[in-house]
Amino acid sequence: MERRALILEAAAREFERVGYAAATIAAIARAAGVSQGALYFHFPTKTALALGVIDEQNVRTFDVVSHVDSSPTASLVAASRGIADMLLTDPIVSAGIRLSLERGEFAPATVAFYDQWIGGISDVFRLAIASGELRTDLTAEQLGSTTVPMFTGVQLVSAVRTGRQDLFPALDAMWRLLLGGIVDPRHRDRLLGVVAETFG
Amino acid sequence: MERRALILEAAAREFERVGYAAATIAAIARAAGVSQGALYFHFPTKTALALGVIDEQNVRTFDVVSHVDSSPTASLVAASRGIADMLLTDPIVSAGIRLSLERGEFAPATVAFYDQWIGGISDVFRLAIASGELRTDLTAEQLGSTTVPMFTGVQLVSAVRTGRQDLFPALDAMWRLLLGGIVDPRHRDRLLGVVAETFG
Repeated sequence: MERRALILEAAAREFERVGYAAATIAAIARAAGVSQGALYFHFPTKTALALGVIDEQNVRTFDVVSHVDSSPTASLVAASRGIADMLLTDPIVSAGIRLSLERGEFAPATVAFYDQWIGGISDVFRLAIASGELRTDLTAEQLGSTTVPMFTGVQLVSAVRTGRQDLFPALDAMWRLLLGGIVDPRHRDRLLGVVAETFG
Repeated sequence: MERRALILEAAAREFERVGYAAATIAAIARAAGVSQGALYFHFPTKTALALGVIDEQNVRTFDVVSHVDSSPTASLVAASRGIADMLLTDPIVSAGIRLSLERGEFAPATVAFYDQWIGGISDVFRLAIASGELRTDLTAEQLGSTTVPMFTGVQLVSAVRTGRQDLFPALDAMWRLLLGGIVDPRHRDRLLGVVAETFG
């Protein structure tokens, strides 16, 4: 791994371990196996490190939503599973999403991140409505701007309560609750089957 | 206001303004109009201040869910409006909920907070199912442990994206999406009417 990536990964692990407030440059440099001087060369402040983690998280997670197959709704379920897998294994993703909700210095990066996500997910909901899979009086934009925050809350509270041990059952329940009211009856069994296969 | 409450309120405002990491005891004491010595007498560390805000938030928010009237589902909608009003006007509540999602030192207080909330909301869902308002193959416990995180995510992302300016429309869309799949057809129009009156 190149040095910049190593540092970002060590920073993400440290932010997850002790929280952003308590994390120190010294501990991050030690964990990355670089000198503090080398770390400062890449990231002059702790804020810059956090923004680096947020940006890299954004790149990694947004990639999973760019694959839409013939069932747009199933693609959304698959995307949520992809993000869930990253939350469980990739500290850049878990730390990046948590940092993006902190108050203050990260706000501009965070707003751009959620706007991009909500835009991308709303596009897939638009396809799902057009394909006949979904039938609802909510607009695609309302569905996107509601489900992205819902997923955010479900994974965050799962992290806080159980260290994400209940993440899959929590997402299973989330999708069953969500789809119950919007799925067209003709697609209901198939799509609930996709949810059960993905998270059951 | 007594001095301890004044300090907690100033701390909450400062955590919301600059973030927990960047907040200083000196700035909080200044905003509360007390000496740093007086502040340390009540709260010996910044962690103690944060835990004080989380606890006080917990007391204030949990109170609104203890009022269940003849329509349990309508009571849940009313409770979410009550919390939304507090999020918009009470810095203790907005700062407390945000702090409760930070990694690290606050975890025990946070787990207790979410367990209590999910337990309380699940109890109301149990009444709503028993009363015939809701009809779903999800259990009351699954509904509680899904909707509390959903609400958390919706209000947090609203805070990040728009400073909570879109909180009411976001909650309106959340409830319409949620109720669509679980409400008994005989209660549908009435309960969607409650949502529209509450957040529309």
